[in-house]
Amino acid sequence: MTALFAETALLPDGWARDVRFEIAADGGFAGVDTGAAPEGAGRLAGPAIPGMPNLHSHAFQRAMAGLAERADPGDDSFWTWRRVMYDFVGRLTPDHVEAIAAQLYVEMLKSGYTAVGEFHYLHHDAGGAPYDDRCEMSHRVISAAVRTGIGITHLPVLYAHGGFGGAAAAEGQRRFLNDGEGFMALVEDLMKRHAGDGQVRVGIAPHSLRAVTRELLAEVVAALDGIDAAAPIHLHVAEQEREVADCLAWSGMRPVDWLLDNFDLSPRWCAVHATHMSDAETARLARSGTVAGLCPTTEANLGDGLFPLAAWLDAGGGFGVGSDSHVSVSPVEELRWLEYGQRLARERRNVAAFGDAPSTGAGLWRAALAGGAQALGRPIGALEAGCRADIVVLDADHPLLAGRAGDVLLDSLVFSGNANVVRDVYVGGRRVIAEGRHSGEDAIAAGYRAAIAALG
Amino acid sequence: MTALFAETALLPDGWARDVRFEIAADGGFAGVDTGAAPEGAGRLAGPAIPGMPNLHSHAFQRAMAGLAERADPGDDSFWTWRRVMYDFVGRLTPDHVEAIAAQLYVEMLKSGYTAVGEFHYLHHDAGGAPYDDRCEMSHRVISAAVRTGIGITHLPVLYAHGGFGGAAAAEGQRRFLNDGEGFMALVEDLMKRHAGDGQVRVGIAPHSLRAVTRELLAEVVAALDGIDAAAPIHLHVAEQEREVADCLAWSGMRPVDWLLDNFDLSPRWCAVHATHMSDAETARLARSGTVAGLCPTTEANLGDGLFPLAAWLDAGGGFGVGSDSHVSVSPVEELRWLEYGQRLARERRNVAAFGDAPSTGAGLWRAALAGGAQALGRPIGALEAGCRADIVVLDADHPLLAGRAGDVLLDSLVFSGNANVVRDVYVGGRRVIAEGRHSGEDAIAAGYRAAIAALG
Repeated sequence: MTALFAETALLPDGWARDVRFEIAADGGFAGVDTGAAPEGAGRLAGPAIPGMPNLHSHAFQRAMAGLAERADPGDDSFWTWRRVMYDFVGRLTPDHVEAIAAQLYVEMLKSGYTAVGEFHYLHHDAGGAPYDDRCEMSHRVISAAVRTGIGITHLPVLYAHGGFGGAAAAEGQRRFLNDGEGFMALVEDLMKRHAGDGQVRVGIAPHSLRAVTRELLAEVVAALDGIDAAAPIHLHVAEQEREVADCLAWSGMRPVDWLLDNFDLSPRWCAVHATHMSDAETARLARSGTVAGLCPTTEANLGDGLFPLAAWLDAGGGFGVGSDSHVSVSPVEELRWLEYGQRLARERRNVAAFGDAPSTGAGLWRAALAGGAQALGRPIGALEAGCRADIVVLDADHPLLAGRAGDVLLDSLVFSGNANVVRDVYVGGRRVIAEGRHSGEDAIAAGYRAAIAALG
Repeated sequence: MTALFAETALLPDGWARDVRFEIAADGGFAGVDTGAAPEGAGRLAGPAIPGMPNLHSHAFQRAMAGLAERADPGDDSFWTWRRVMYDFVGRLTPDHVEAIAAQLYVEMLKSGYTAVGEFHYLHHDAGGAPYDDRCEMSHRVISAAVRTGIGITHLPVLYAHGGFGGAAAAEGQRRFLNDGEGFMALVEDLMKRHAGDGQVRVGIAPHSLRAVTRELLAEVVAALDGIDAAAPIHLHVAEQEREVADCLAWSGMRPVDWLLDNFDLSPRWCAVHATHMSDAETARLARSGTVAGLCPTTEANLGDGLFPLAAWLDAGGGFGVGSDSHVSVSPVEELRWLEYGQRLARERRNVAAFGDAPSTGAGLWRAALAGGAQALGRPIGALEAGCRADIVVLDADHPLLAGRAGDVLLDSLVFSGNANVVRDVYVGGRRVIAEGRHSGEDAIAAGYRAAIAALG
């Protein structure tokens, strides 16, 4: 048992003073006491807040951030970006993927993300054949998480088709494809290997309604229930208008309605993007307890559109944030622009008002903690007994935070400046970022640069 | 004469190799040669690009960034934000203003801004009386610029009324007010004091059409022409729908149309925000040569709305960016979200396409250099003979830029990650940021913290 002490900390009931954290050998909080004494505890250097879950990541895309910002003749859109991505993905080896993921996870930790949901679709070799170990690529991504110290919910992707109604997959998708049986073998193998590991959880990610049929999705959900009925299920849905149109053409229904009618959506589900919903879909999906997986910087980069946040919150919906394509790796930029997108569309301020909490920054941060933790299916997102000891310590001496305390500190964190004010980061009780640096960052950056050079 | 050498640099015609900069004693480029030899020149540590002009700043607002992010019962908007700002402004002394401006300008330099347009409206003491030296507050802001090394175009604000048609000013505006004669005395005094200073230029800023009558604006523009017929003229216009409605009610015309019909707008003018324009206003204003002063992060924070960028560019309009209320101090976040706002509204990518330049990042950076330089009325924004030696050196070793070169480097600068990749910054030939640090930053931050503590 070790102990940490913070002068101020954000607990589930709000800000508290003189907080002592008792941390068990397994990396969880054994106790969190307020008005406590600091004797014998390591003193945290600033205000302590829960680390942020990053609920949606495609790690390898970190290496192509900035490579698709070129005008495409004609109608430049998500779909032209996807062509660039498919070309890039075709050249990646397991070594590249691990080097890129390690660099990315260091960046996540430095920005205050302490857990990641890795929506992992790159399974096979360049020709589309499974590696000798079918889990090879999964192992590499999980290894990057373990080496850097970030918690991970690994979500192998089920990708079987190239379009609605079981259309054949395209050539560029060959590295992603599995049938239900091969997919569940992979999932079971990973679950067994990481059973009881507090830092690693395994769920599944049916890619989208384009990539699976109803029968296949029902088959894997039933198989999953037989192993771990609480394991998270994530899928992309309604990210693009064209996807909505294609779904309507195929089924006569919008994608979220189709999903709600055909599956028993519940709090273990995470609907990633869910950008294009009717008012009725918004209310129905929120009521199901499904978490909305919002990725504002990627959704902006790809021109997806704006999530109906106000209607979602009015219906009691929960959400978390993800850095997705990693054009940005910062919970601050995600939350700031989630709110700003709404302000621009509505021409008013402080749209994401949460109950009677007057602070928009605190409201956004706390909502994303709760939704992110739910989506990742791990006991994270709160500084309380029973949760993992994932703590972000802010640099209260930074000029951006001068004179700020309590919820106003969170308003300034989310809504002012650009400097990174994350000082120290603990994951599972272990300090992985100290004064803004990761002990392995130089070696990991060198490995990343070598991978980029090799990819040419 | 000193010399600097860069392996790669962004010149007016594009990227060049082996570039030698000869810098005169007055801080301007005496010569810029490509394919040159490095002997005897200081070697720059990475790719060199022109420093970015920040064309719109209200320095004191830096200290209130994050303080207005609280839900206001009812219709929370720009106007509720303005009440918070008026309360804050009432308590500021000249010492506070100088301490805040110095902190802000260090932050600007570190993020790659090498010049600022200070739209300066806080003239008088807390009771609304001029200080013994009417220029006291202007001196303090200019002093902060000189101490930190940033170039400045000081734009004293003419504020005479509280609404269209010469309405009386409100109590909260008493520190801003001048009549035409007092205002021009201040402008002339500042111009004389800084004549011939390559780092300081003086222009004027009629606050908005709410704050001046036609007669008063005509009077000061005529007086200005008698002193410096090329001095910049900046004003806020069409930032809010309510302003458009009020202008219509008063004059029967929209504000930009009114301005174009009543004044001879030309390239010396900068229309700040210009958010709400009809298609006809957009085309007319662009054709006048007026620069659009865009402040995407502030416009998002205040819920102003989106500037009609595509139509503006189609009409040949120029623009620059400003950090305005300083909720963000980064040319990257301004340019990134200028483009992203358009992508979200149009649901497509790479909206700000510039001529035949395929790179959106390079196109945005270069357009904002040209427009910003024009708006600030100083020879800046390009690495070429005759311009000021304002150079930003990027950290090419940073993982965000690994493997990136040329325009793709600018795409990655603008559209990837959150880390600050500005390594060294030269203004007027003098290195003011070295390896990410300003030599005075610790003392300046201490002064800023003391001011914040005093403001309570």
